[in-house]
Amino acid sequence: MFGEMKVFSGGSHPQLAADIAAHIGMPLGKIKITRFSNENIKVKVEENVREADVFVIQTSCSPVSDYLLELLILIDALKFASAARITAVLPYFPYARSDKKDEARISITARLVADLLETAGADRVLAMTLHAPQILGFFRKPADQLFATPILAEYFKRTDLGNSVVVATDAGAAKFAGHFAKRLKTPMAIIDKRRFDDSEQAQSVALIGDVDGKDAIIYDDEIATGGSIKEAANILRKFGARTIRVGVTHPVFSGPAVDRLREAELDELVVTDSIPIPKAKAQALPTLVVLSTAGMLGDAILRIHGGRSISEMMD
Amino acid sequence: MFGEMKVFSGGSHPQLAADIAAHIGMPLGKIKITRFSNENIKVKVEENVREADVFVIQTSCSPVSDYLLELLILIDALKFASAARITAVLPYFPYARSDKKDEARISITARLVADLLETAGADRVLAMTLHAPQILGFFRKPADQLFATPILAEYFKRTDLGNSVVVATDAGAAKFAGHFAKRLKTPMAIIDKRRFDDSEQAQSVALIGDVDGKDAIIYDDEIATGGSIKEAANILRKFGARTIRVGVTHPVFSGPAVDRLREAELDELVVTDSIPIPKAKAQALPTLVVLSTAGMLGDAILRIHGGRSISEMMD
Amino acid sequence: MFGEMKVFSGGSHPQLAADIAAHIGMPLGKIKITRFSNENIKVKVEENVREADVFVIQTSCSPVSDYLLELLILIDALKFASAARITAVLPYFPYARSDKKDEARISITARLVADLLETAGADRVLAMTLHAPQILGFFRKPADQLFATPILAEYFKRTDLGNSVVVATDAGAAKFAGHFAKRLKTPMAIIDKRRFDDSEQAQSVALIGDVDGKDAIIYDDEIATGGSIKEAANILRKFGARTIRVGVTHPVFSGPAVDRLREAELDELVVTDSIPIPKAKAQALPTLVVLSTAGMLGDAILRIHGGRSISEMMD
Amino acid sequence: MFGEMKVFSGGSHPQLAADIAAHIGMPLGKIKITRFSNENIKVKVEENVREADVFVIQTSCSPVSDYLLELLILIDALKFASAARITAVLPYFPYARSDKKDEARISITARLVADLLETAGADRVLAMTLHAPQILGFFRKPADQLFATPILAEYFKRTDLGNSVVVATDAGAAKFAGHFAKRLKTPMAIIDKRRFDDSEQAQSVALIGDVDGKDAIIYDDEIATGGSIKEAANILRKFGARTIRVGVTHPVFSGPAVDRLREAELDELVVTDSIPIPKAKAQALPTLVVLSTAGMLGDAILRIHGGRSISEMMD
Amino acid sequence: MFGEMKVFSGGSHPQLAADIAAHIGMPLGKIKITRFSNENIKVKVEENVREADVFVIQTSCSPVSDYLLELLILIDALKFASAARITAVLPYFPYARSDKKDEARISITARLVADLLETAGADRVLAMTLHAPQILGFFRKPADQLFATPILAEYFKRTDLGNSVVVATDAGAAKFAGHFAKRLKTPMAIIDKRRFDDSEQAQSVALIGDVDGKDAIIYDDEIATGGSIKEAANILRKFGARTIRVGVTHPVFSGPAVDRLREAELDELVVTDSIPIPKAKAQALPTLVVLSTAGMLGDAILRIHGGRSISEMMD
Amino acid sequence: MFGEMKVFSGGSHPQLAADIAAHIGMPLGKIKITRFSNENIKVKVEENVREADVFVIQTSCSPVSDYLLELLILIDALKFASAARITAVLPYFPYARSDKKDEARISITARLVADLLETAGADRVLAMTLHAPQILGFFRKPADQLFATPILAEYFKRTDLGNSVVVATDAGAAKFAGHFAKRLKTPMAIIDKRRFDDSEQAQSVALIGDVDGKDAIIYDDEIATGGSIKEAANILRKFGARTIRVGVTHPVFSGPAVDRLREAELDELVVTDSIPIPKAKAQALPTLVVLSTAGMLGDAILRIHGGRSISEMMD
Repeated sequence: MFGEMKVFSGGSHPQLAADIAAHIGMPLGKIKITRFSNENIKVKVEENVREADVFVIQTSCSPVSDYLLELLILIDALKFASAARITAVLPYFPYARSDKKDEARISITARLVADLLETAGADRVLAMTLHAPQILGFFRKPADQLFATPILAEYFKRTDLGNSVVVATDAGAAKFAGHFAKRLKTPMAIIDKRRFDDSEQAQSVALIGDVDGKDAIIYDDEIATGGSIKEAANILRKFGARTIRVGVTHPVFSGPAVDRLREAELDELVVTDSIPIPKAKAQALPTLVVLSTAGMLGDAILRIHGGRSISEMMD
Repeated sequence: MFGEMKVFSGGSHPQLAADIAAHIGMPLGKIKITRFSNENIKVKVEENVREADVFVIQTSCSPVSDYLLELLILIDALKFASAARITAVLPYFPYARSDKKDEARISITARLVADLLETAGADRVLAMTLHAPQILGFFRKPADQLFATPILAEYFKRTDLGNSVVVATDAGAAKFAGHFAKRLKTPMAIIDKRRFDDSEQAQSVALIGDVDGKDAIIYDDEIATGGSIKEAANILRKFGARTIRVGVTHPVFSGPAVDRLREAELDELVVTDSIPIPKAKAQALPTLVVLSTAGMLGDAILRIHGGRSISEMMD
Repeated sequence: MFGEMKVFSGGSHPQLAADIAAHIGMPLGKIKITRFSNENIKVKVEENVREADVFVIQTSCSPVSDYLLELLILIDALKFASAARITAVLPYFPYARSDKKDEARISITARLVADLLETAGADRVLAMTLHAPQILGFFRKPADQLFATPILAEYFKRTDLGNSVVVATDAGAAKFAGHFAKRLKTPMAIIDKRRFDDSEQAQSVALIGDVDGKDAIIYDDEIATGGSIKEAANILRKFGARTIRVGVTHPVFSGPAVDRLREAELDELVVTDSIPIPKAKAQALPTLVVLSTAGMLGDAILRIHGGRSISEMMD
Repeated sequence: MFGEMKVFSGGSHPQLAADIAAHIGMPLGKIKITRFSNENIKVKVEENVREADVFVIQTSCSPVSDYLLELLILIDALKFASAARITAVLPYFPYARSDKKDEARISITARLVADLLETAGADRVLAMTLHAPQILGFFRKPADQLFATPILAEYFKRTDLGNSVVVATDAGAAKFAGHFAKRLKTPMAIIDKRRFDDSEQAQSVALIGDVDGKDAIIYDDEIATGGSIKEAANILRKFGARTIRVGVTHPVFSGPAVDRLREAELDELVVTDSIPIPKAKAQALPTLVVLSTAGMLGDAILRIHGGRSISEMMD
Repeated sequence: MFGEMKVFSGGSHPQLAADIAAHIGMPLGKIKITRFSNENIKVKVEENVREADVFVIQTSCSPVSDYLLELLILIDALKFASAARITAVLPYFPYARSDKKDEARISITARLVADLLETAGADRVLAMTLHAPQILGFFRKPADQLFATPILAEYFKRTDLGNSVVVATDAGAAKFAGHFAKRLKTPMAIIDKRRFDDSEQAQSVALIGDVDGKDAIIYDDEIATGGSIKEAANILRKFGARTIRVGVTHPVFSGPAVDRLREAELDELVVTDSIPIPKAKAQALPTLVVLSTAGMLGDAILRIHGGRSISEMMD
Repeated sequence: MFGEMKVFSGGSHPQLAADIAAHIGMPLGKIKITRFSNENIKVKVEENVREADVFVIQTSCSPVSDYLLELLILIDALKFASAARITAVLPYFPYARSDKKDEARISITARLVADLLETAGADRVLAMTLHAPQILGFFRKPADQLFATPILAEYFKRTDLGNSVVVATDAGAAKFAGHFAKRLKTPMAIIDKRRFDDSEQAQSVALIGDVDGKDAIIYDDEIATGGSIKEAANILRKFGARTIRVGVTHPVFSGPAVDRLREAELDELVVTDSIPIPKAKAQALPTLVVLSTAGMLGDAILRIHGGRSISEMMD
C-alpha cells in the first residue's frame, strides 16, 4: 500500500518515542529540530521519506504552544518531502477539553487543532483516551482512538480487588468510571457535588454508593491541577474508605497539582506515560506509578501500517 | 449586510413554519415541492431570492430521509438562485444521536449531515437543544444553538414547585437535568441503572436523591420510543412520588412510544413543537401539552438577520 | 496499488449484488444495516476494510431517499474505517433526469448527488447508461460509464431482425436510438410529437420513417410511468407495425407504469436488472424479459481494481 | 449588498464591451493589458476595485488560448485587488462543445474551464446560449445563462413569416429548432443524415417535413466551419425551398467557413455579435446581418448587480 | 459592505494596539484572554461581532508560538461568532524569513503560517515590510503589504543628509537599500562578504562604494541577533565613516542582540514599533529611537474598511 | 507504491521529451493532440493509464498560452482516465518572473499557474532553475526544483578557468552568480547600474570587481530579449575583458534577442535545452552551445517514481 514505515518524534516526549521505537524494533527517523534565538522553530528531516508511511509522535505538554507548532512544522516538512502518508500519533490530544461552546464567542479549540493538523498535512490521527468521543467527529480524515483503560485495569487487577470500589469524582465522569468498574468487576460510587437548590449556602456533597471500609479507586481521564482528586480523597476518607488509590490516563500535573496530590495522601497514584513527568515532580510523589503505553501505541502503529484492524486490538 | 430577509419552509412541519412566519410578521416565501411517482423530489423556488438573506425551516421527522433530501435540494436550488446567505433552521437536528463512534466501523452520521448541509450550500445553521454540545464542532461554518429549556421552565413555573424534584432518567442525563433543577430552584434526583458488578443477575436500579411524597418532573432532551420514560415513571411511583410529570424538548414519539407513554400514566407530558405530532398520536395522549418554540425561533431569525447577538436572547 | 478488493452492497438490490459477487467469485463484504423506529439508518461494517479497494453497489429505487442516504452513510463508515479507495457502483444513477436548469430556481439535483457522494467519501463512481453524457462532468473525481446497449442488442440479435426497425419515441431519443439501430443493422424511425404551430389544437404526430408491416423495436434509456411507450405502441400499430417490442435499460416502472405497459400489449418488453422489479409487477407483465448486467458490472469492477482499461471492454 | 458596479473588458471583443458600457451608461473600468515579447500577458487594473461588484467581459475567439489565459489573469488581479464579487461575462463560452466524454481518455474541457474560472476567482458566470444546458451543472458557483433566441426571433418577425419553415440541420439540433419554430409560429423540418443501415453506400439524407416552395430558416447555436450550413442549403434547394435564410447565435466562422457560407448562397445570414467578425470576413459575406446582444447583456449585468431576477427578463 | 468596524488586539503588543485605536479614534474591542495552568489559551470575545468588519492586531514576538496560537484561536472565536470579515493585522509576520526551501526536507514555514491563518478563518491579511515580496503569493486570500520605509525616511530627512551614504550589509540587501538611498537622495554602498575563491582562508570583505568621511546609514528589514550590524559598523569605521546610524523596520533583538548593538557604538539606532521592545532592552540602548507605525496601520485599517485603495496611501 | 511509470509529452518540446525517454529507456506514452480550426485543443490519451505513475513533460515556450492550456487539458484527461499520480515536468516554468506584486492590482501569475495546475489535477511538479526559490511555496502539493547549474559548470570546467571571472549583470543576480563562481573556483564581479542620486543625468555604471585582461563568464537564469547581456558585454569589453562568455539556463530568446546576442559578439553563448531554439535562431548564433538536461530530468523522473531522494542527486 504504502512504502517503508518510518517513525519520527517531535521533542515533547523523547522517552515514550524511544520506548515505542524499541517495541516496534526499529530506530526513530533522523530529524533535527532547532529553536533559534528568535524562538522560530526549524525542522529538518534528515533522511529520505519519499513514499514512506510516516508516523509522527508528539504529545501535548509544556511548552504546549511550542510543541503544537513544532508538530505542524514537522508534518509540513514531511508532506513536502513527499511522504506517502503521515499519521499524527497524539498520546495526549492538544486542547482536548476545549470541545464545546459552553459560552458565547469562544473557540472550540480541539476542532481548530483538528483543522490545523489537516491543513499542515496530517492524513490521519491516532489519539488516546479523548475527553469526549465526539472529538473524533472533528476530523475530516480517518482517526483512531486507543483507550488506556485496559492498561490501568491490568495493573489494578494484580492486587486483590475483592474489597474495592471504583469512584467517579462527579456525575460527568460516571459513565467512564462505570466502564472501569465493570472491567474490574467491582461496584462503583459517585461523588455528587451538584447544588440541589439555588440558595447561597455552600454546595452539598453526596456520596452515591458505599465506600465505608473499602479500598477506593478513583478513576478519571486526566489530572490537571489535582483539585478534584484532593477533594475526592478527603470525602472518601470522611466516608470511611480504607485505602485510596487513583487511576488516571493523562498526568497533566499543572500548577499546584503536585502539592495537592501530596496533600491528598494517596495510597497509590497510577497514571500512564502519555505525558512526560519531570523528575522533580515524580520524586515529590512517592506513591506514583507510571504505566507504559508504548506497547499499545507501537502495536497500533504496526497495525495501521499493515492495514490490520485496531478494534481487534481492544477487547 | 445582506438583502431582504426571506423565510422558506420545507414540507416537514408546516404549522411551526407558519407560526414562525406569523411571529416575524411576514409571509413564507413561495415554493413548490413536487414528489414524482418515481419518488424524485423537485423543488421550485417561486420568487426572486437574489442577494436575499434566506432562512430555511426543516425539522427532522418522518419520513426522515425524504425531508433531509428535500432540505438539501431546497438549499441547492436557493444557492444557485443566488441567495446571498442561506441559514438552515433545524428545530430537531437530523441524526443528532449519531454523534460518536462507539463501535468500530460505524458512521458519525451527525457529522456527515453537517458536511452534506455545507456541501449543498448552507452558510449557517440554527439548531435547537442538540443531544451533545460537541455537535456544533462538526460544522466548519458558524452555527447557533438555541435551548428550549427556558420555555419548558417557564411552563412548569406557572405551578407551585415547592414540593417538586427534577429527575434524570440516567447518569448521562444528569448534567442537563441539573441545569433544569437549578432553573426551577428544585432539588434533583437521578435514576441509576448501572450494574454494580458483572454477575448475570438483572441490573440493580438505584434512585439517587429523594422523591417520596414529591412531585417529580422527569427532564430529558428527547423521547424516542418512550422506554426510559415508562421505566422511570414506574420506579418513581415505587419510590413514592406523588405526581409524575415529564418535560422534554423533542417529541420523536417513534415506534411504541405512544402506547408506552399512555401506560406510564403521566400527570403531564410537556413537550415542544420542534417535531410535529400527528393528530392521532396527540389525541391518544390526554395529558400532552405542546409548547410553542415559534417565538424563540422567530426572534433568533430576526437577530441573525439583524446582526444582533443571540446569546443576549438567553438568560 | 490498493489492498484487497472488497464488494459491499446497500439494501437496494440484493439480487444484483449477489449476482455480481457470484460473477466475480467472492462473497459480499459483511455489513449490518439497521433502520431504527425513528427511521434513522445505522450502518455497521462488520469486517476490516483498512487499505482495502472497496466497491459499494447501490441502485436508485424505491424508497429512493432512504437508499441514497443509506449509500452516503455506508460510504462515510467505510471512509472512516480507513478504506483505501471507495467506488460507488450505481447501476441506475439517482436523479439522473434532473440534469439541467430548464426552469428558473430549480436544482440540478444530479449534480448535487455527485457532490454529496464526493463529500461522503466516494473516490470514484461506476454508473450505467446515464440519461445525458454530460453528467460525467458533474464529478470532480474519475467516473466511468458503462452502457447496457450491447446486452440489449445481443438479446435482440438472437431473433431474425431482417424485417425490423428501431423506433425512437421522440426527437430527443433519436440519437441513442440511431446508435442502437446501427448496432442491430436495421433502419430506424422517429415518432415526432412536436407541435408545428402554436394553435390550441392538439399536437400533430408524425412518424418519420417506415414501419408498415415491420417488426418495431422501441428503444429508450428508461421507462418511468410508461406513458410514452403506450402512446408509441398505439401509433406504431396505427401505422401498420407487425410486432412491437421494447428494449430499455432502466425499468423504473413507477406509478401507473405496469397498467400502461399491459395495455400497450407489447410482444416483448426487454429490460435489464439495473433496478429490481417487485414480483407482483413482474408477474403482471407476461412478456417481460429481464437481462442480467451482473457480468458486465462484475467485469468492470475487476478491471477497475486491476487497473485495466474499461473502454476495451466495450466494442 | 456589494459596492459600486464596475465593468471591465478583456481584449477579445472591444466593440461589444463598448456597446454594453454605452447601454449601461457608464465607462469601462481602466485596465492595461500588455503582451511582452516572451508572450507573457500582464494585466494591470488601473483603478480602485476594493469592495466593488465587478463584471469582466471576455468572449472566446481567436487567439482562443490567449484570451482565456488573459481572462484568468484579469480575474486573479481583480480578486487580489479585493473586488467584492467578480462575474465573468462570457458571450461565447470557451470550449462549450467539449462537454462530454464520447471517447475514452479525453477531457471534458468545458468542465475544466469552469474549474479554472472558479480557481482564478470568478464568483459567478453569465453565459449566453450554451451548447448543452447541462454545462451550467459544471459550476459550483451560481451561473446564469441568457438566450439569444428572442433577439434572433425579433429580427425574423419583422418580415412576413406566413410561408416560412424552420429547419434543423440534424436530429441533435431538432429540440432547439423546435423552440425557435414555436416562437416564430412556423412549422419545422429536420434534415436527417443518419445512415439507415450499415452498408457501405453513402449516407442517405432525408428531409423530414415540407420545404417545397417555402422560405426556409435554418436555425442552430453556432457556425464553426460552415460545413453543415452549406450542405443543408444544398439539400433545401434540392427539395424546392424558395429562399434560404440562416439564424445562428455564435459566428465562430473558423477555417473554411467564409468560403463555404459564400458558396451556400444564402438569402440572409443572421448572427449575433457574441463573437467579433473581422472586417474582411464580414465584407466577404454580403448577406450577413449582425444583431446586437449588448442590450440584453447590459440589462442582465444591471439586474445581477441590483439583485433582480434574470428569468423575468426572458419571456 | 460590511457592518460596523471593530478592532481587537491579541496580547503581543498592547501599546501598538492602543496607539492604533487612538489614531482611529475608537476603543479596542472587549476580549478576555486566559492562560490556564495547563498552558491552554482561552479567548472569549466579550462583545457582539455579528456581521462586523473585524481587524485583529497581533505581531510576532516572544513568546512566538504562544502569540501565534493565540491569534489562531482568536480568529476562530471571531469566525464562529459570525464576524462578517476578519483581517489579521500582522506588523511583523511570523516566520517571515522561512520563505524558501534552501535545504532538502525543511518546511517553508511562512507558507504554513499563511495556510494556518486561512484555516482559522482569516479573510485577509495586512502585513508590513515582508522579508520577500513573494510571500504575498503564499496567500489564497487578498493580502496587503505596507512598507515602513517612508516612516524611516521621513525621520532621517529631518537631519542634513548632504554627506550621507546608505549602506547595505550584504548583496542580498542591496536592492532594498537602493530604494532607500533613492528616497533619501544619497549615494549607496554595499558590504560584500562573498568569498572570491574556495580556499580555506577567511572570507574577504569588500566595501563597494565610498564611505570615507561620510555619515553612513545602514539599512535593513530586521535586526535579529545584531551580528551583521555590529560587523558592518566595524567595517564602516575601518573604511573611515564619520558617523554610523542604522535604520531598520523590525527590532527583533533576539539572543545577544542588545550586547552586540551596544558594542557597535551606533550614533543612532532607528527602528519602528512593529515589535515591542522590553524596557530593559530599550534602556540598555542609549541611542535607540523608536518610530511609530500606528498612524500608518490605522490609516490602512480605515481604508480597508472603507473600500479605499491602500496603494494611494504610499507615495 | 504506484503502478507502471508512463511518460507523456505535450507538444512544446518534442526533442527534449524524446531525449528524456531515450535516457530513461522507455518510449513516450501514446497521445494525440489536435488543434481544430476553431483553435480548440483536443487531447486524446491513446493508451491505458489506470493506476499508472504518469509524468507529463511540457516547457513554456511559444505559443505560450497554447502550451499552457494544452498542458492543463492533458493533465485533466489523464486524471479522469484514472492515472494514480500525475507529475508535471516543467523545464521552464510558465510565468516564473511574475512572482511578486511590485505594482498595485497586478496578478502574481506564477502563483495562478500553480493553482491552475493543481486544479487540473497535477499531484506534483518537477521544475528546473526557478527565478525565485519562494515559487515552490506557491504550491500546496509537493514540488521539486532541479538546478541546471552543475551542467553549465561541468561544461565551463572543461576549459582552463585560471584566468576567469564570473560576472553578474546586476545586484539582483549577484547571489546566484556567487554560487556559480564558487562552483568554478573563480572570483566574481558585479555590474551595478543603480543610480546613485536622483538627478536627471544618465545612470552611472559601476563594475564591482576586476575583469581587466580576464576571461569573463556572465551568469544568469534566463535570457529574454538579450538587452542585459548585450549591455554587459559592452561594459566588460570597455573594462578590458579578454574574452566574454555567457552561461544561462533558459534560452527564452524573445523579440530582438538574436540580433542583440549577435551584436554582443560573445566568444561563447552556453545555454541548456530547457526551451527549444528554432533552427533559424540557432544558425544565426555561431557561438551558441546547447547543453542537454535530458539526463538530469530523466534521472529525477526515475527517482521520483522509485521514491528515492532527489537531493542526493545534486552535489
